[in-house]
Amino acid sequence: MRVYLDNAATTAIDSEVFDAMIPYFKEFYGNPSSQHSVGRDVKSAIEEARKKIAQLINAQAGDIVFTSGGTESNNTILKAAVRELGVKHIVISAVEHHCVLHTAEYLEQAGEIRLTVIPVDEKGKISIDQLDKVLSESNEKTLVSIMHANNETGVMIDIEQIAQVCLHHNALFHSDTVQTFAHYPIDVQSIPIDFLSAAAHKFHGPKGVGFFYMKKSSKVGSLIHGGSQERGWRAGTENVAGIIGMAKAAELAYEHLEAERFQIKNLKSYLIQEIEKAIPHIQFNGAIDDSTSYRVISLSLPPHPMGSLLLFQLDMQGICVSGGSACSSGANIGSHVMAAMNIPAERIPLRCSFSKYNTKSDIDILVEALKNLYSV
Amino acid sequence: MRVYLDNAATTAIDSEVFDAMIPYFKEFYGNPSSQHSVGRDVKSAIEEARKKIAQLINAQAGDIVFTSGGTESNNTILKAAVRELGVKHIVISAVEHHCVLHTAEYLEQAGEIRLTVIPVDEKGKISIDQLDKVLSESNEKTLVSIMHANNETGVMIDIEQIAQVCLHHNALFHSDTVQTFAHYPIDVQSIPIDFLSAAAHKFHGPKGVGFFYMKKSSKVGSLIHGGSQERGWRAGTENVAGIIGMAKAAELAYEHLEAERFQIKNLKSYLIQEIEKAIPHIQFNGAIDDSTSYRVISLSLPPHPMGSLLLFQLDMQGICVSGGSACSSGANIGSHVMAAMNIPAERIPLRCSFSKYNTKSDIDILVEALKNLYSV
Repeated sequence: MRVYLDNAATTAIDSEVFDAMIPYFKEFYGNPSSQHSVGRDVKSAIEEARKKIAQLINAQAGDIVFTSGGTESNNTILKAAVRELGVKHIVISAVEHHCVLHTAEYLEQAGEIRLTVIPVDEKGKISIDQLDKVLSESNEKTLVSIMHANNETGVMIDIEQIAQVCLHHNALFHSDTVQTFAHYPIDVQSIPIDFLSAAAHKFHGPKGVGFFYMKKSSKVGSLIHGGSQERGWRAGTENVAGIIGMAKAAELAYEHLEAERFQIKNLKSYLIQEIEKAIPHIQFNGAIDDSTSYRVISLSLPPHPMGSLLLFQLDMQGICVSGGSACSSGANIGSHVMAAMNIPAERIPLRCSFSKYNTKSDIDILVEALKNLYSV
Repeated sequence: MRVYLDNAATTAIDSEVFDAMIPYFKEFYGNPSSQHSVGRDVKSAIEEARKKIAQLINAQAGDIVFTSGGTESNNTILKAAVRELGVKHIVISAVEHHCVLHTAEYLEQAGEIRLTVIPVDEKGKISIDQLDKVLSESNEKTLVSIMHANNETGVMIDIEQIAQVCLHHNALFHSDTVQTFAHYPIDVQSIPIDFLSAAAHKFHGPKGVGFFYMKKSSKVGSLIHGGSQERGWRAGTENVAGIIGMAKAAELAYEHLEAERFQIKNLKSYLIQEIEKAIPHIQFNGAIDDSTSYRVISLSLPPHPMGSLLLFQLDMQGICVSGGSACSSGANIGSHVMAAMNIPAERIPLRCSFSKYNTKSDIDILVEALKNLYSV
């Protein structure tokens, strides 16, 4: 019996999503670039998927480019904006995902850009005034890349507000929406955003597929050169079944968006209530109000003799939570997000992230396990 | 009833491959970078897949990097060799796949390299003497990228011979083995090759996943920056089910390699024999001996009033063949491969490419259809 509370790392595939993918592993095996019927059948399914995703964010189908995931999407936008749109200055926050942070650092080290990293306060928020100041002092072509919700803490930014500041200063604006697409509605017509990126496996779709949106006036070139797939924006034979699965997952998520938000918010509130009773001196990294994603809560556990081995103890009991992001776990170093928020190193960060498949019983099991670990 | 003779574009997934993937869409949904049990189960499956693929080419597991496909693999090798191994000169043949050709042209246009394109003769072969001459005159660090079998004609090069020439001149050697991996045995210990690349969907695996091999002494950096997946060589959450499927497909292909080669070679011989009887003045692009892949034959049809609309006629009859490569079909321009081989423009190139699922009856249907089209 496992309790899976690590849905910011990845989510289980919805069985309806998998069912939608099956025909594209079986009868519809053609290469979408082939001009014969076997290829054309597949091509039209991909274009249907593109339209479906575009509609969900109020974009045109031609603005959606399919990729192998969030990391490739973010890499493409940053690198191509520099190499093809003449961006000379990139502004990010200190808590961006490594795929934005390391890409920006790579571009800086290669001498291709100047990089400004805006710090966050102890609640994980950047200062809009500081962003405004940085942009008003920048006279190079600038790209601002700030994530919608942080993957370790769930802390959200107001992308509409950031977009307006960027627009005012004529800077391009990209938001890594990997943690929020299909969990929060986003309308690219009402927000002046140039680029956003998403990964299917964060909303009950398959791994290895994602997309990015780019505004007509801000088309970037390819990261991956070759054939003329994706109208020239991204070469390589398409991950057909993955794309079909992603569109289905997005469609399902939007269909049940409000109901799931309600259900998951309740679970999060229940966890907060129970854990405050069980563990004295518990703290939360980031606010616990609606300015933090309903899908994520980052606990700051009091010091414990076992330190971060606490997570291993939970794992032994079948409870899957995370110390930070999954993507950086191979690199066994402290979290750059916690460091940026000045969380004292002796406190133990523990991220719980929820999905529609979680229940109150999952929370009870986690809280009970933590209570036992702290009452020894 | 369809006749699918376009297996160089893509192949149908083997049902055993799909069966092997299913658990990774269902119970094993973890993020391989997560440190808890749900993640670790998936991580070890990926590492098993890596070992399996490494063994097939006599490499170490650590030399294999999983990607989203052949195009990404080829892009990574060329771009990272330039940016991280100090390559200043790239040598390719005139008939490389667009993902090598366009990447090399991109790097040349960006002023990052000097590009030498070696022409081919009317049989699609490059001159080894010319390669030797180009390398002996090059005093920059050089990468040679020459494909093992051409995707449009099946014409093969002797990678062992090319590798020896590169070694002699201290040039790095990459071969795009997308059309040959899992169809021909390749031993990276006996051939001094630095890099090779492959795509699962060319050997009855899924689309959207591939790998590249890199020799220990020639490790390149990432094309895609971010998390520490793939030991830092390629960021982004892994396409887990795809990787499992690719390893299974490779394993099956190797298990039946000789039997399938025998079966498919017979089909190809049968096609040659029957079409020579049916269509007077038929020619073949490339040799029809063992120096051309047993999986591909490129016909050069005599001029016909319908021109390349002949393929459309075949399609109407349910016969799926190709005029060239699938990847360039969106671009609707003549084939650079046919142009490089000096095939007269009024002749109609028609590629048939075979798999284990084809039968003599497929060949009979194609030959009969062509015979009818030419007897009008």
